[in-house]
Amino acid sequence: LKVYLAGPEVFFPNARDLLDVKIRLARDIGFDPVAPGDLEVPPARSKREFGENIYRVDEQLMKQADAIIANLTPFRGLHADIGTVFELGYMCGRGKPAFAYSNVVDNSFVRLLRYYDGQVEAAPDGRKRGKDGSLVDDFGMNENLMIDGGIAASGGVFETHQANDVERYSDLVAFKRVLKAAAHRLKVK
Amino acid sequence: LKVYLAGPEVFFPNARDLLDVKIRLARDIGFDPVAPGDLEVPPARSKREFGENIYRVDEQLMKQADAIIANLTPFRGLHADIGTVFELGYMCGRGKPAFAYSNVVDNSFVRLLRYYDGQVEAAPDGRKRGKDGSLVDDFGMNENLMIDGGIAASGGVFETHQANDVERYSDLVAFKRVLKAAAHRLKVK
Repeated sequence: LKVYLAGPEVFFPNARDLLDVKIRLARDIGFDPVAPGDLEVPPARSKREFGENIYRVDEQLMKQADAIIANLTPFRGLHADIGTVFELGYMCGRGKPAFAYSNVVDNSFVRLLRYYDGQVEAAPDGRKRGKDGSLVDDFGMNENLMIDGGIAASGGVFETHQANDVERYSDLVAFKRVLKAAAHRLKVK
Repeated sequence: LKVYLAGPEVFFPNARDLLDVKIRLARDIGFDPVAPGDLEVPPARSKREFGENIYRVDEQLMKQADAIIANLTPFRGLHADIGTVFELGYMCGRGKPAFAYSNVVDNSFVRLLRYYDGQVEAAPDGRKRGKDGSLVDDFGMNENLMIDGGIAASGGVFETHQANDVERYSDLVAFKRVLKAAAHRLKVK
């Protein structure tokens, strides 16, 4: 069973190492893991065209995959890496089971509360809003409801574990947990 | 032709008005627009379950749609609203044409440069990295390459227009432009 490993690891200098460890763990449990970097990106005449070529390679890998495991640890802000979120949506759109994990336990509401310096109040309509008037969802979900909702609807699982700051993107406790859950649900091995 | 209107408008107090204007414009050009809020969300026993019910309603609307037009104006940070990005990925995964617009013209690289206070440098491998060592993509794309790449691969168009701050989420210049492009490409009317 082919599983696509998505996450912000690709942005880090040790991307190859981070991915290799995850690939090995996924293989050990019985998956056939695929990840960005598995295929060579064709050269291009412009940087935009090169970016589009990377997309096509990743899309090809996703099309071959039977499931996705996404690292949704917040990256450069409140939320998960949006490239990874696109991939999660892509696989849900294809009707594939979507699994995810985050190395930050605080849920979306808690993170938004911090973002608004605690200034979130119940508006006349009963819903919570930040000081800019925008809705602050409080569904007890780790991420935006489309993400947690999509994972649940696909039959997947979302695991969280609090990593320390230094290991925010390399800690594998939650990854191992979700890998095990995915192997169990998808009857691998 | 049913087009799904996605965007962070749903978070604003005037969500209904913002969406109604877009719905009318889409109808005027010949589309049959669908948007979050079109269907009633079934009641639930817990807030998590209610969030999941909202997801299911939105997923149902996406499944009926032939295309998506997403508002990718940065929301609460560097990037587009991640719920919207999930939906864009979802529609690409279903092989549907994806159209998008942003009311911020600065591309992803320019926004990241600001995020890193200009401290982005070429690493020994020739790629640009922020002061935290993470890769700063520079593909001349408005968003992450999965987003711009996905739109291009789907046959869609990504329009941008610089709105002033007050109208960041209500300015419709780019929306009208992409609506026209979508109607043309999808041969509506």
